[in-house]
Amino acid sequence: MSGKYVHGYDPRENERLHDQAGTLVDLLHSDTAYPGGSLVLEVGCGVGAQTVTLARRSPDARFLSVDVSAESVDAARRRVEAAGLENVELRQADIFDAPFEAESFDHVFVCFVLEHLAQPREALAVVKRLLRPGGTITVIEGDHGSAYFHPDSAPAGEAIECLVELQRAAGGNSLIGRELYPLVSDAGFASVHVSPRMVYVDASRPELVDGFTRKTFTAMIEGVREPAIAAGLITAERFDEGIRDLHRTAEADGVFCYSFFKAVGEKR
Amino acid sequence: MSGKYVHGYDPRENERLHDQAGTLVDLLHSDTAYPGGSLVLEVGCGVGAQTVTLARRSPDARFLSVDVSAESVDAARRRVEAAGLENVELRQADIFDAPFEAESFDHVFVCFVLEHLAQPREALAVVKRLLRPGGTITVIEGDHGSAYFHPDSAPAGEAIECLVELQRAAGGNSLIGRELYPLVSDAGFASVHVSPRMVYVDASRPELVDGFTRKTFTAMIEGVREPAIAAGLITAERFDEGIRDLHRTAEADGVFCYSFFKAVGEKR
Repeated sequence: MSGKYVHGYDPRENERLHDQAGTLVDLLHSDTAYPGGSLVLEVGCGVGAQTVTLARRSPDARFLSVDVSAESVDAARRRVEAAGLENVELRQADIFDAPFEAESFDHVFVCFVLEHLAQPREALAVVKRLLRPGGTITVIEGDHGSAYFHPDSAPAGEAIECLVELQRAAGGNSLIGRELYPLVSDAGFASVHVSPRMVYVDASRPELVDGFTRKTFTAMIEGVREPAIAAGLITAERFDEGIRDLHRTAEADGVFCYSFFKAVGEKR
Repeated sequence: MSGKYVHGYDPRENERLHDQAGTLVDLLHSDTAYPGGSLVLEVGCGVGAQTVTLARRSPDARFLSVDVSAESVDAARRRVEAAGLENVELRQADIFDAPFEAESFDHVFVCFVLEHLAQPREALAVVKRLLRPGGTITVIEGDHGSAYFHPDSAPAGEAIECLVELQRAAGGNSLIGRELYPLVSDAGFASVHVSPRMVYVDASRPELVDGFTRKTFTAMIEGVREPAIAAGLITAERFDEGIRDLHRTAEADGVFCYSFFKAVGEKR
């Protein structure tokens, strides 16, 4: 996690992404399934939002899900137990100093994590060492620069740019989705395949209007109001105008587009 | 067509889009097929690039393809004949003053046309009158604001914005893709469904790197160099920097994203 202003708005922690927009979960995860008996390392599990989806879809695989935050791991453990899942072990661990043996995992899964790291390349190198030859890595990230909408709005663009700037200042990269191909390739993975996962929202998809445009994306941008103004990135008036314009895209004639990117690579 | 600076770079006239990037044709057209015996009006066929794809995919439907430019229609006729297609009739016609009876077509197809029109809503109303009840309209448009890439580049964004501005000044709208849902809905079509068609290009897809990033998108932006500079929208130096940066996205570690939008609606 890169800082306080992201906390609570991170898609990893957003129930709404799951409860109100099942189609989005399908969009991101429906093509990820691990064979029975395989051991999968989930890096940066946060409070376990992806963990539950992941473990349910591969009931005969075993998951070791780790996060640098002990508090998040506790929350993830409660969530996994509440879901009745028995194929997940949770552990607090810093991936840059992880107590795991080289080549001890069959697969690695990394979702909404690299965007927060100052050293995403090093993180990929670390997990590559933990992966056995023939194993796969799956990386999913968003890209805040992929957001566009109707009606178009300069203030909304500036409000979004505040989050990008704050995340950059904190060492992260909100535009990392589009970079997954070179990042994963440069880390030495083979057969890298990246597929974009575009969330397209218009009034014919009301569950996404509410669950994604309003309560996920716009809420995430609204969450940086105070730090953005405090950092002098924007005036309060302009920021609020941007938020109004984002809500405007959720009206009957509005449209909202955002893309996630999913990369899969193999360790040879 | 909205003006000279678009001519020759319009995807409708771009052979490369077809010859070198068959996957792109599939992306846009693979789910369009008309039943045998149906009569389809293609509005704004240009030089017939889409016409050939369309007529081949529905060999038992009949097409009447029209364009306001007699010169384009002649070129389209040669192309259709060269392709050996016998289910296409070509005719010069202005859709706003078309000599067709109301409700005389089973389906209407409109591809890369609305972006050039000052009155897209009126055009949709006109074709709706020509369509029989129960017939469908299919609209495909690009959206130049959907382009983003790695490495990111401010000058490249400004060069793209020049095309957007020039098209706006000519009465068109290069950001129309994202607006298809409200446009087609407001024209009174029912069951409107819009699906985005994202072109994602990285080094693992070399035919798209060359056929789309370089020779379609970047070439299209390069084509507005003179009018953009003449209009005072940008300096020559800044524009050329933008073009260099667009070519940079076609290198081994580059990524390029662009989205088309396809809308289908029904006349009740």
